[in-house]
Order: sequence, then C-alpha cells, then structure tokens
Amino acid sequence: MTSSSTDTPAPVLVLVPGAAGAPADGSAPFQLADPAVAQLSVTDLVVTRGDGIFETIGAFDGTPINVGPHLARLARSASLLELPAPDQEVIAAAVYAAIEAHADVPELTIRVMYSRGIEGEDTPTCWIDAHVSADWAPYRTGIRVASLDRGLSTTVFDESPWLLQGAKTLSYAVNMAAVREAKRRGAQDALFVATDGYVLEGPTSTLLVHRGDAFLTTPVSAGVLPGTCVNTLLAALQDEGYEAGEELMSLQDVATSDGAWLLSSTRLAAPITHLDDTELPVDLGLTARFEDLLTGRA
Amino acid sequence: MTSSSTDTPAPVLVLVPGAAGAPADGSAPFQLADPAVAQLSVTDLVVTRGDGIFETIGAFDGTPINVGPHLARLARSASLLELPAPDQEVIAAAVYAAIEAHADVPELTIRVMYSRGIEGEDTPTCWIDAHVSADWAPYRTGIRVASLDRGLSTTVFDESPWLLQGAKTLSYAVNMAAVREAKRRGAQDALFVATDGYVLEGPTSTLLVHRGDAFLTTPVSAGVLPGTCVNTLLAALQDEGYEAGEELMSLQDVATSDGAWLLSSTRLAAPITHLDDTELPVDLGLTARFEDLLTGRA
Repeated sequence: MTSSSTDTPAPVLVLVPGAAGAPADGSAPFQLADPAVAQLSVTDLVVTRGDGIFETIGAFDGTPINVGPHLARLARSASLLELPAPDQEVIAAAVYAAIEAHADVPELTIRVMYSRGIEGEDTPTCWIDAHVSADWAPYRTGIRVASLDRGLSTTVFDESPWLLQGAKTLSYAVNMAAVREAKRRGAQDALFVATDGYVLEGPTSTLLVHRGDAFLTTPVSAGVLPGTCVNTLLAALQDEGYEAGEELMSLQDVATSDGAWLLSSTRLAAPITHLDDTELPVDLGLTARFEDLLTGRA
Repeated sequence: MTSSSTDTPAPVLVLVPGAAGAPADGSAPFQLADPAVAQLSVTDLVVTRGDGIFETIGAFDGTPINVGPHLARLARSASLLELPAPDQEVIAAAVYAAIEAHADVPELTIRVMYSRGIEGEDTPTCWIDAHVSADWAPYRTGIRVASLDRGLSTTVFDESPWLLQGAKTLSYAVNMAAVREAKRRGAQDALFVATDGYVLEGPTSTLLVHRGDAFLTTPVSAGVLPGTCVNTLLAALQDEGYEAGEELMSLQDVATSDGAWLLSSTRLAAPITHLDDTELPVDLGLTARFEDLLTGRA
C-alpha cells in the first residue's frame, strides 16, 4: 500500500487484561496491540451473545472529554449486567495511552469495550480502540430525525431490570436497525418513543429540548442512558440561570419546542431541523456554544 | 496439560468466508481453523454492535437435526436484519465438515454464526463451531420456569420491525439477563410474557403446551422465533390425529394446561414442572417420545 497525504492515520488498539483486577499471569494491566491482527476468540461472550458493555469517548485536539463520567457510566452498566466492576483507574490510563499512541488529529473516537469474557472463564475481556472520527460537520449543522416506537414503556427500568434499559450494552442490533429505518425515511437519525407516549433517546444519542427558559432531557428513570454530554450542558445552563433538568415529554412537546438536539460524545450537539414532518427552530449560535462547552473550548 | 480418559474432546472451528458468495480471493468457501487462536477483529460489527445472527444445531450420535429448517431460519433472520442472504448450501456443507472433524460424541452442539462483518467492509463474517454439549439430562427430566415480562406487546413484529423481534440476533444480552433473573428466582429457565398478557417463548427456547386433544405454540406473528423443534413435533402430532398449531395463550392458560415444555435443538424437550409457583402435570412418557421424534430415533 502506498502512502499519501490523504491517508487516514492508523487506528490504535490497547488491550486491557487488567480492566477488572490485576492479570493472574503478572502481565501489565494494559498494552498496545496490532489492530490489523485478529484479537478475539469466537467463544468470547461479546461475540456469541452480545454480552458486554461499552463507552464511546470523543477527543478533540488530543483532549478526551468526560473520561470520568464515561467510566462511571461503564461501571453503572457493569452493575446492571452483573459484570465484575471495572477498574476505572486502569481503564482511564489505557484511554490516555491510546490517545498518546495515536497520530495527532483534530477529532478522535475512542471506544472502551468490556465483555463478560470467554465462555467458562469468568474474566472480562477489555480493549480500547482509537480511530479518526468520521466527518460529523454536516451532521452538526442540522439533522432530520424520525420518531420510532421503542416498544417499551418508561416504567420497565424499575419494573423489569432484566430488559437492561439504561445499560449501554454491546447488544445494539436494534439500535442499528432503527438507524437504518430512519435513513429509509429520509432522516439522518432516530428518536425512540416509549409506548406510553414519552420520548426517550436516540439509538446512540441523548435528547436535549429547549422550551422558554428551560432546557430539558428525558429522566434516567425512564430507562434511557445517563448522557454525559447532556449533564455537561445542563450544569452549564443552570449556572447561567436557566431551568435545567429532567422531564417526561411527548413527541408533541418536542415538536412544539423552541429547539431540540441529539447529543453524543463524538458528534457533539446536532440540532434537529425536522422531527418527522415538523420543522423545528434551529439556533446555530446556541449550537456553537454547546459545541464549545462540550469540547472545553468555552 | 496431561491427558486423561475424562478429557472433553477438543472443539472444532470452521471459518466460512464463502457464506454469502464466493470469496473474492478465490479461496475455499470454508476451512478448518484453530479454535484456540484468536480469529476475530475487534472491529467486526458482531463485536462492536452485536450486529449478527445465529443458529444452534444439535447433533445426536453424529447426525445433526433440522439442518435445512435452521438454515432457512438463518436466511429469515438475515432478511429481517437486511444482511446479505447466506448461501445455505455452503453453510450446510460446512456444518457437516465440522461434525466430521469432531470426535464422535453422543451429543454435539453446532453454532452457525453470521455477522455483518468488519466495519466498512460489507462482507459477512461467518464461522461454525462444534463442541460437546453440556449435560442436559437433568434439564430434560423437568424444569422450574419463571415468567418474566418481555416489555413488548405481541403486535410489534408487524408494527415495529426495527425491534427485530422474531430474528435470532447476536444481541442476546437481555436473553442472558433473563436467565440470570430466572435462576435468582430458583428456576432453571424463563418464559417471556408480552405486555398484552400472552406468553411468548423462552430466552433460548420455544413453548409447547398440551391442552386436551391439542398441542399449541405461540404464533410466529407475535414476534417469537419460528421454532424448528416445535415444527417437527406439531407435524408428527398432527399426523397422529391431534389438533396442532398456533394460539395466543395467557400465563393462566399455560398454568392450567395438561402439560408444557420448553423446546430447543440441543436440550430437546424439557417438561415444565412448575410455572412460577404453579405445579404442572408432567408426562415423562410423552417427553421421551418427543425426544425420539426430535432426534429421529422414533
């Protein structure tokens, strides 16, 4: 393969055998590995059952955002799936090692993957991969969003914890199918709606809604993931005197709001231009400020 | 490691690069590989998203059961997930090659795995692994079953196909969590119940209910997998003059039935002794006949 100036820098892979305690063989808690070489057993439970959890962290100009909150959420997901508690200190060090080993790029996507491990072995498999982020600039200027039934009510998080709502699992086939359906409808992303009529979250994002003096998101108790970006923004907005918090909202509430965003750690704040066929107000100034707040440039 | 007469025969792994069409590099459609060596990329979508499908086939005294129906169901799952259609002939040949390569054992479990493939490459990853089945004898003598809310109604299969009900995906974290919850309740397995009150299926099994002159299972249109074992049994029972077919049933219908089983291709027919706290009639003669019918010994 010839090299050229348009080549994408190579991805970086860090294996983390010490993610749930020191490795039994006395080896280092994490080490760089070759991402071009197969690393996983066909009997790893993440492969045979989607039985694992993950976090996706964005790094901007070399600085990862919300590492602590992401790893706290990983620990929360581990608890919901009854996985051994991850060693957040070791994993954080491995995240920084992955960034250090990667070429300097403006936007990096870092995935922390944590599986139940090889069948019968009871030791989590953990690795981190870092790669150049996709070009999310068009997405950040505005997206059409299709609302899609999630089939579940907002009460299952409390009543039926085995449904794993609120855990960021590696069983994401439904999330991927929802994005395909949204694209089929001419949208760029989806917004899940509960059977009791309340909006939930995107397949890989958190909802933020602007209504008058308030900025609102779906309550975590409704079975959505606790969003790392939304927490950053709500804290900043509250400091500025806005009402900021959680509220169960209907699709109609969002459609008649003063603006809404889907938030993610790599795509940042994407203003919703259309929710199904309804046009929403878009405030690009506010969106730019959210981006600065999220990347720490504010 | 020293060898002894109690050693379990080694598992067999067959990679199937030709599972969705001839490999571009002209290599064989399938080949044996070393299951002790890592074979999968950390960027395979089955790893990063649980984005794949599978089938589990039982082989008894070297003869696999229902290979055709299993691979037809794999094709159905592929269609529901918008994956490239699997080449059923190539995969069937690979299944037989896996059995041929494995030591002769009374009961073998053969998994056919079919992933969307490595991110950005658009080529499914497929492999087959064969290993000695767990000892299911105690399970076949009778199981306690806990009913668990599935959170979804029986109408989502038609109304919300992106929820992938009825597809046998590799996003099985919820199924595994349900089995853990059932065990916590002192049961050996779970039976999912829809929000509209109808029973669905087990996390890895199909329900069969005996009521008078009828043998009944949940309609596929309710979003359950089309069971391969249940189809074998219903056809045989119909030939014997029983009414045999699909019906939406409540938990109460099962609890007051003349007997019920969870069916699977490796565990065969497990009679339910207790559904939650209700004792059910158990007919071990009929269960033995089901086992013979399923393994072809009848």
